[in-house]
Amino acid sequence: MTKIRMGLLGAGRIGKLHGTNVQNFIPDAEIVMLADPFLNDEMVEWAKGIGIEKCTKDPEDVFANPDVDAVMICSSTATHADFIIRAARAGKHIFCEKPIHTDIDKIKEAIAEVDKAGVKLQVGFVRRFDRSHKAVRDVVASGKLGNPYVVKVCSRDPAGPPMEYIKVSGGIFLDMMIHDFDMVRYLSGSDVVEVSTTGAVLTDPRYADYDDVDTAIVTLKFANGAIGVIDNCRQAPYGYDQRVEVLCEKGSVQDNNHLENEAYVSTAENVESAKPTYFFLERYNDAFVAEVKDFIDAVMNDKETPVSGKDGLEPVRIAIAAKKSLKEGRPVKMDEIPS
Amino acid sequence: MTKIRMGLLGAGRIGKLHGTNVQNFIPDAEIVMLADPFLNDEMVEWAKGIGIEKCTKDPEDVFANPDVDAVMICSSTATHADFIIRAARAGKHIFCEKPIHTDIDKIKEAIAEVDKAGVKLQVGFVRRFDRSHKAVRDVVASGKLGNPYVVKVCSRDPAGPPMEYIKVSGGIFLDMMIHDFDMVRYLSGSDVVEVSTTGAVLTDPRYADYDDVDTAIVTLKFANGAIGVIDNCRQAPYGYDQRVEVLCEKGSVQDNNHLENEAYVSTAENVESAKPTYFFLERYNDAFVAEVKDFIDAVMNDKETPVSGKDGLEPVRIAIAAKKSLKEGRPVKMDEIPS
Amino acid sequence: MTKIRMGLLGAGRIGKLHGTNVQNFIPDAEIVMLADPFLNDEMVEWAKGIGIEKCTKDPEDVFANPDVDAVMICSSTATHADFIIRAARAGKHIFCEKPIHTDIDKIKEAIAEVDKAGVKLQVGFVRRFDRSHKAVRDVVASGKLGNPYVVKVCSRDPAGPPMEYIKVSGGIFLDMMIHDFDMVRYLSGSDVVEVSTTGAVLTDPRYADYDDVDTAIVTLKFANGAIGVIDNCRQAPYGYDQRVEVLCEKGSVQDNNHLENEAYVSTAENVESAKPTYFFLERYNDAFVAEVKDFIDAVMNDKETPVSGKDGLEPVRIAIAAKKSLKEGRPVKMDEIPS
Amino acid sequence: MTKIRMGLLGAGRIGKLHGTNVQNFIPDAEIVMLADPFLNDEMVEWAKGIGIEKCTKDPEDVFANPDVDAVMICSSTATHADFIIRAARAGKHIFCEKPIHTDIDKIKEAIAEVDKAGVKLQVGFVRRFDRSHKAVRDVVASGKLGNPYVVKVCSRDPAGPPMEYIKVSGGIFLDMMIHDFDMVRYLSGSDVVEVSTTGAVLTDPRYADYDDVDTAIVTLKFANGAIGVIDNCRQAPYGYDQRVEVLCEKGSVQDNNHLENEAYVSTAENVESAKPTYFFLERYNDAFVAEVKDFIDAVMNDKETPVSGKDGLEPVRIAIAAKKSLKEGRPVKMDEIPS
Repeated sequence: MTKIRMGLLGAGRIGKLHGTNVQNFIPDAEIVMLADPFLNDEMVEWAKGIGIEKCTKDPEDVFANPDVDAVMICSSTATHADFIIRAARAGKHIFCEKPIHTDIDKIKEAIAEVDKAGVKLQVGFVRRFDRSHKAVRDVVASGKLGNPYVVKVCSRDPAGPPMEYIKVSGGIFLDMMIHDFDMVRYLSGSDVVEVSTTGAVLTDPRYADYDDVDTAIVTLKFANGAIGVIDNCRQAPYGYDQRVEVLCEKGSVQDNNHLENEAYVSTAENVESAKPTYFFLERYNDAFVAEVKDFIDAVMNDKETPVSGKDGLEPVRIAIAAKKSLKEGRPVKMDEIPS
Repeated sequence: MTKIRMGLLGAGRIGKLHGTNVQNFIPDAEIVMLADPFLNDEMVEWAKGIGIEKCTKDPEDVFANPDVDAVMICSSTATHADFIIRAARAGKHIFCEKPIHTDIDKIKEAIAEVDKAGVKLQVGFVRRFDRSHKAVRDVVASGKLGNPYVVKVCSRDPAGPPMEYIKVSGGIFLDMMIHDFDMVRYLSGSDVVEVSTTGAVLTDPRYADYDDVDTAIVTLKFANGAIGVIDNCRQAPYGYDQRVEVLCEKGSVQDNNHLENEAYVSTAENVESAKPTYFFLERYNDAFVAEVKDFIDAVMNDKETPVSGKDGLEPVRIAIAAKKSLKEGRPVKMDEIPS
Repeated sequence: MTKIRMGLLGAGRIGKLHGTNVQNFIPDAEIVMLADPFLNDEMVEWAKGIGIEKCTKDPEDVFANPDVDAVMICSSTATHADFIIRAARAGKHIFCEKPIHTDIDKIKEAIAEVDKAGVKLQVGFVRRFDRSHKAVRDVVASGKLGNPYVVKVCSRDPAGPPMEYIKVSGGIFLDMMIHDFDMVRYLSGSDVVEVSTTGAVLTDPRYADYDDVDTAIVTLKFANGAIGVIDNCRQAPYGYDQRVEVLCEKGSVQDNNHLENEAYVSTAENVESAKPTYFFLERYNDAFVAEVKDFIDAVMNDKETPVSGKDGLEPVRIAIAAKKSLKEGRPVKMDEIPS
Repeated sequence: MTKIRMGLLGAGRIGKLHGTNVQNFIPDAEIVMLADPFLNDEMVEWAKGIGIEKCTKDPEDVFANPDVDAVMICSSTATHADFIIRAARAGKHIFCEKPIHTDIDKIKEAIAEVDKAGVKLQVGFVRRFDRSHKAVRDVVASGKLGNPYVVKVCSRDPAGPPMEYIKVSGGIFLDMMIHDFDMVRYLSGSDVVEVSTTGAVLTDPRYADYDDVDTAIVTLKFANGAIGVIDNCRQAPYGYDQRVEVLCEKGSVQDNNHLENEAYVSTAENVESAKPTYFFLERYNDAFVAEVKDFIDAVMNDKETPVSGKDGLEPVRIAIAAKKSLKEGRPVKMDEIPS
């Protein structure tokens, strides 16, 4: 193959982001078709502007197109699993935004179809491709610090989403902390075996209306014996706080936030420096390109994708366990959750 | 009074530290007498060298001495409460190393005697006097960041104590994390209402022999609605890791470790800087002086001491709750623990 | 105008960089033509790949093309001034890589033609568009720190260029430090009135063969009374060291290097973090886009360009003065250099 | 000897600092006598308070006292050389505050007497004993980074001294930058061979009345081929700015300021951290103890002192050269200055 030809499913914010990235930065791939059930003039214009020739409202047009080698699923979460199944049956490789689904059986059904079809599947856990988080994980994975003891992730958004979104998001564990559940698996190189949740509604009382919390701390036990902790808050006004840390036998490895710039001002009052980069588009800008590059590389060179179907399933299971732990006020073992 | 005359009880490591500090750095106080049941020539020589005139094996000599205004209790933990009681009855003000006792009733008995006698009592939670931790707390206490949401403390020792000590220490929660239980109360300005513990034996299998863990994560709920987390490890080879952090409504405040020096070397491989200061003697060197200064100030000027009897009691109660949570595998509410 | 149509002159490394940036990141501009006297198949393929329709060996084809609104001069330094003159006479706006020329009269001739034609001219001093340097300058320019007192620039390359290049580069002051001469004018908001140079050959004795130095410190006096210093070295093995600093009446503002990532490893030996980004392509990646965006904005909206003809001339004059100071072993006043 | 018995000459600010340090922190030394021509009740009380038994107005009492092994010269600068001579003739070892004198011949005379008497002499260049500057120098001296290329020192005071002091101080080079002239010799391990000065009056016009500047940049050439630069300003409102840096063949080593504390606050506006420690008493607090410890060690164990007579002489010569360079507007070679 000279270039991987891709069909893009969904032209919302994340779809446009990936679409633009592929056309500009991934020399070995090109988007040849866009499908969005809400296709409108603005989307068509955007698509033409970056060289996507064909636009359709019907995703089936993508699956049926023999010129499409791979699909990029950026549609609403509820459609992910079905689109994976349809794409797999059509023999297309699949890059799918996270999460695959919020229902475990549905995820397993999708993975089974992928396995049957023998196509590649990569789930969009983009933070694995951040240069700092990756550097942390590479040190742990190298083994030079010995076994991991404690894995810590701090992840806070600069501002909460609209309450309309909270209604349908599945809650903080499935919507927000799911990235961190993936991150602790990535950092520790191990599966989670038990979770215990502490949560609170602190930033906006309306979260309670949806049986959700806006601030949560989840402790974890890993199969390799390590323990861990994740803390999340929907609203940290200083920006997107994204820090990870792994204490190992022979040392510790961690990262600092990326700042807007490296200037600082010293006065008689204090020393002032810039805030962390604002949100995920700023912080994970490069990582969004890197994850697709790796996917294209896996397709072209028949390698394993760096984020597998199982990697898509496990964070959903952990999120369900964390939610259950919060509700029942007790640690929940992962074998209580269907796998 | 021109100078507060103090009796020092105990000339072990911490007793010598405080004794030397008082003689050198606290202009308003002087140690006039040392009592240690294991008094030996070396201790007497040390005492003379810093101007302590009288040495005795019998603590009662201190309580009976009309020239002693205040005592500094640095003897073994088991004796703390009784010495507090004896000192209070003798009308002496009391600076007592932490913890007062590991038995709650005994602590309460000691506090009751202090209250009855109307003497000052300060418990040696030295970290409150560290310039960085104090700066964090002062920002929270100022209210300029609004209500606290999340309180985090990371506290790791460079190397575990001898197993002989582990046998009698009361375990990681009463011996090590007790400082952090005090710290979260200090930072949040609130009492703890629930704790949940995750622990593991990772650095040395012998901890299990004493029904102890060497690595633990404890999540907390506070009376003011905030939540928190402490992580401890007995062995972090890079030095004494002491970091605190409070996320509030309008921002976050945290501190970095103090480094051995501020030099760094940049080469074709990486940028290398110094490790954190080695252990508590290095890190909290200045804080050990500052806490006694504040005690002397409270005595001289009839102010409240900055670490009260209740501040001595609560961390012990939280430690007992944390231990119970680990054992029973469930969150423990503080009202399950006698108060 | 809907889009500024540009002719690209030169498809070497920097030409390709700008060409790719315009096609991918500057929505209001597009390259419609490439001229390179050494045009070859590889260049043509590159051009087609990013949507440049026409390729030619003859720059005159660009100047004569009525569809070209602006030119981007990325050819060899010796051709810059003549291409500016040709473009100005043809009524094209001009973005020109630095330096305009190494001969002052030639620069003045070019600027005069630009002024006569009333076209826009921007010189490619890219570092002004770096987010950290710009943040430093913005603080100084805001006036909130009062008058500048001391301006400092540290600028070191990770590795020296090939000796073939040294032969023709004009030497360290015209080739390398010229960026810093621009930077001190940008930071201080003032012209230089005197320079004094200290230099040495330290990294490779062959620099001496070309009457050049590889390490130099230049002190400066500014028209506004401030003083300054620049230090350069051709070879700093830890990467591209780019730091600026301005001490003002009420405080200081400075920046740190950008690091490859923000991870760090703490062990019993030390704390290791990543090196600075490797070289100018890595460090000033975003700045290369930002400068062209500003140029296009100036053209579209008839604003002044952020780096004027005078801004192109002055650093060359300062470089000539610095070279003279080194040779004659004395401070050189800027009015000794033709203007 | 069991303890080195010292005579303290001068009980001004620096004399009291050293006196207190010796009594509290230098177990192998004790001050047994104080001489100050302006001796008053306050000084006597201070001396008694720290255990100095004898006080006198006449320095000759110290030189004549057979119980005095060593003297610590903290009197006014003009007396240093004569006191060194008197002490040497009396066979006392000598710790002398910097500078020995501002007259080169006088310094040489003093050193000659020291050599003749075979006593130890250490000059109080305290910054060599700062843990961060020392760490930088130790890396350079270890040779692991290869030869030094560029030595940089930034040294700024938080506020200028009273104009009364400026009148008699000898000017910025002899009073303030002299520390930095010592520092560059310490860091580079090499003598200075040429200096070139740029200066300005920026913080207060009255400096000009005393033929002085308040802001200066001095470039240097070293005997080992390296070059260097020092920048000084009398008034940097954010505190005491003390940074050193050495670029070597294989890397660079530098240090950051020491901050008042390590806390930082992140808000929607910026990230705020503490200022550098305020001034030399705060920054070099530990170094003042360390230098005297090393002196006592040299005396007790017959070692070379870490800051020799030559180390006292050279910075004065460089200061005179720097002043001459400023006045004459040209680089000055060190062999123009008597040695």
